[in-house]
Amino acid sequence: MITVALPKGELLKNSIHLLQSVGLDFSAFLDSGTRQLQIPDTSGKAKALLVRAQDVPVYVEYGQAQLGIVGYDVLREKKPQVAHLVDLQFGYCRMSVAVKASSAYRSALELPADGRVASKYVNCAREYFQSLDLPVEIVPLYGSVELGPITGMSEAIVDLVSSGRTLRENGLIEIATLYESTARLIAHPLSYRLNTGNLHKLVEDMR
Amino acid sequence: MITVALPKGELLKNSIHLLQSVGLDFSAFLDSGTRQLQIPDTSGKAKALLVRAQDVPVYVEYGQAQLGIVGYDVLREKKPQVAHLVDLQFGYCRMSVAVKASSAYRSALELPADGRVASKYVNCAREYFQSLDLPVEIVPLYGSVELGPITGMSEAIVDLVSSGRTLRENGLIEIATLYESTARLIAHPLSYRLNTGNLHKLVEDMR
Repeated sequence: MITVALPKGELLKNSIHLLQSVGLDFSAFLDSGTRQLQIPDTSGKAKALLVRAQDVPVYVEYGQAQLGIVGYDVLREKKPQVAHLVDLQFGYCRMSVAVKASSAYRSALELPADGRVASKYVNCAREYFQSLDLPVEIVPLYGSVELGPITGMSEAIVDLVSSGRTLRENGLIEIATLYESTARLIAHPLSYRLNTGNLHKLVEDMR
Repeated sequence: MITVALPKGELLKNSIHLLQSVGLDFSAFLDSGTRQLQIPDTSGKAKALLVRAQDVPVYVEYGQAQLGIVGYDVLREKKPQVAHLVDLQFGYCRMSVAVKASSAYRSALELPADGRVASKYVNCAREYFQSLDLPVEIVPLYGSVELGPITGMSEAIVDLVSSGRTLRENGLIEIATLYESTARLIAHPLSYRLNTGNLHKLVEDMR
């Protein structure tokens, strides 16, 4: 039996529709009343785990799930040992540097070398500013990173932007893009190589 | 003006009631319609930031907030450079080791030395098992850690338990307690020493 790890949040609906199109029905997860964390497909061929986006690659890396769907941002931040199979083209967003619209900064290189950048994506942020040779301090936050510049704790943030609404509502503007992100299909490398549960056929159908 | 960092979630209501009892009204945060991240007290003497529990010590450490309220579990996991002022006695919970009720493990020392323990509190978990001289692998998860034992990815979890309902619903039982946790009042060390904005008076009132 194949187990698929699915991410809570933004990507869930499209992920479930994609799996429905290849004959696997996990639509029970879309029922807001459910508190279930794992459900079988109605055909009994597969089951799905519903987990935090950041946990999807963990279940796949440890082989508890043979397949997973997760944003490229998570793969780029965590660098898990999983096989990247397909760019699923949905869930488009970008990892951006943003500052207060009222600040003087209009590019990442204008930020002060002793400045601070708040982010949930500390590895992505650190790599980016290292590539610019700008030794800013990365302040790790778990949520509402836009409060960094608003309170004056940091000059900038590195965060995922999709519509840009949160930035606008908080008086912030994007001044640089680190990379673009979409949903990806990932696999446990050994399971994929061994074609456990006829994984190849399923992956081909999803392509 | 004093800034207080308040944690979203479980501790928020009691935190706001405590601050009301010393004359600071931030009850607007309890209005579920609000998306505001910072609000002034009605008297204009103070303001509050509403942030993730894990971010409270960050704002206090960097001095953007002079005071903060946060669970001891967060302080123990992150070890931020903040002054621990008062045990506020509410928000009681405990950091526990739990396993499947159907497993044979009935104490932490019975876990296999090459076993896995899933946790959101990787530092607490690592320290605890090091103190037992049990070289288990800690698997970092962000949510629903109970899926670790359920899927077979890990033998045990280390997680915060209050009523124990989540454990029961998932067929897990506690086999050890690392420590107990309650809400704590913390301060930016320098602001507290300098008595910025008459902090001492406010802290005395809260005691």
